[in-house]
Amino acid sequence: MLIREATEEDWPAIWPFMRGILAAGETYTYDRDAAEDAVRASWMLPLPGRAFVAVDDEGTVLGTSKVSRNHAGGGSHIANGSYMVDPAHSGRGVGRALGAHSLEWAAAAGFRAMQFNAVVETNTHAVALWQSLGFTVVATLPEGFEHPRHGFVGLHIMYRKL
Amino acid sequence: MLIREATEEDWPAIWPFMRGILAAGETYTYDRDAAEDAVRASWMLPLPGRAFVAVDDEGTVLGTSKVSRNHAGGGSHIANGSYMVDPAHSGRGVGRALGAHSLEWAAAAGFRAMQFNAVVETNTHAVALWQSLGFTVVATLPEGFEHPRHGFVGLHIMYRKL
Repeated sequence: MLIREATEEDWPAIWPFMRGILAAGETYTYDRDAAEDAVRASWMLPLPGRAFVAVDDEGTVLGTSKVSRNHAGGGSHIANGSYMVDPAHSGRGVGRALGAHSLEWAAAAGFRAMQFNAVVETNTHAVALWQSLGFTVVATLPEGFEHPRHGFVGLHIMYRKL
Repeated sequence: MLIREATEEDWPAIWPFMRGILAAGETYTYDRDAAEDAVRASWMLPLPGRAFVAVDDEGTVLGTSKVSRNHAGGGSHIANGSYMVDPAHSGRGVGRALGAHSLEWAAAAGFRAMQFNAVVETNTHAVALWQSLGFTVVATLPEGFEHPRHGFVGLHIMYRKL
């Protein structure tokens, strides 16, 4: 598995699984019917943000990540990270590899910490992954996320220093 | 004092004090030299967001607020609020009036809670105001904000149900 910067040419490989993940509405705070152009603009970021893809030996895109400033101005030193793995390639450590890579990249880019604003409590796989990579839950917003099957569930804010 | 929806015609009265507040870099996570067009687009929101102004009997703009979704999708039921008072009109309860109004407006619009993502710890007046309006600090990101005079200070995330 190789992780490299995403290019516009990668988007047609990213969008099909990203669209499915967003349409499910269970893990991300995008609108479930978010328009492709708006999602692409929010994901394929120019510097100081950056989008990445994890690809296998044949060049197949397995997942994608992005890193950006969580806030501007006086908050510019804290990064935000987002991650999506193609469900067809889950269970191969793609999320962990993207997470570890983004932490290294953000530290090298000068960020001092990384924050996730919205980790859905019922996404236990993601919560455990981020905890194993050094993140802690700094707050849980009660009923912060409306899950299509579970109703209102908690929404974690997670954080770690770099 | 009257609080009403802001219109494009209000912007020339808003921008001069907003620009000063942003340039000071002490209370908001905008870039200190943020371009007027970008700030206007981030403030003068279409529905389901909304910008407001507080005006005195002569129609002078004393301050402004905006309410938006804090997240999209499954997080759409939590509002975000932002507030700026013209320093020339501080000490008259403008911030409190804008805050109370936005809570009422957000509740009437169907939001279930309000969240602030970035309240600078050294902005003690604001922290106390929001606490008096029922908000609690749910997390403080250590060194989450780089203050131009105080260096790295904490950044509060504040929350209250509606």
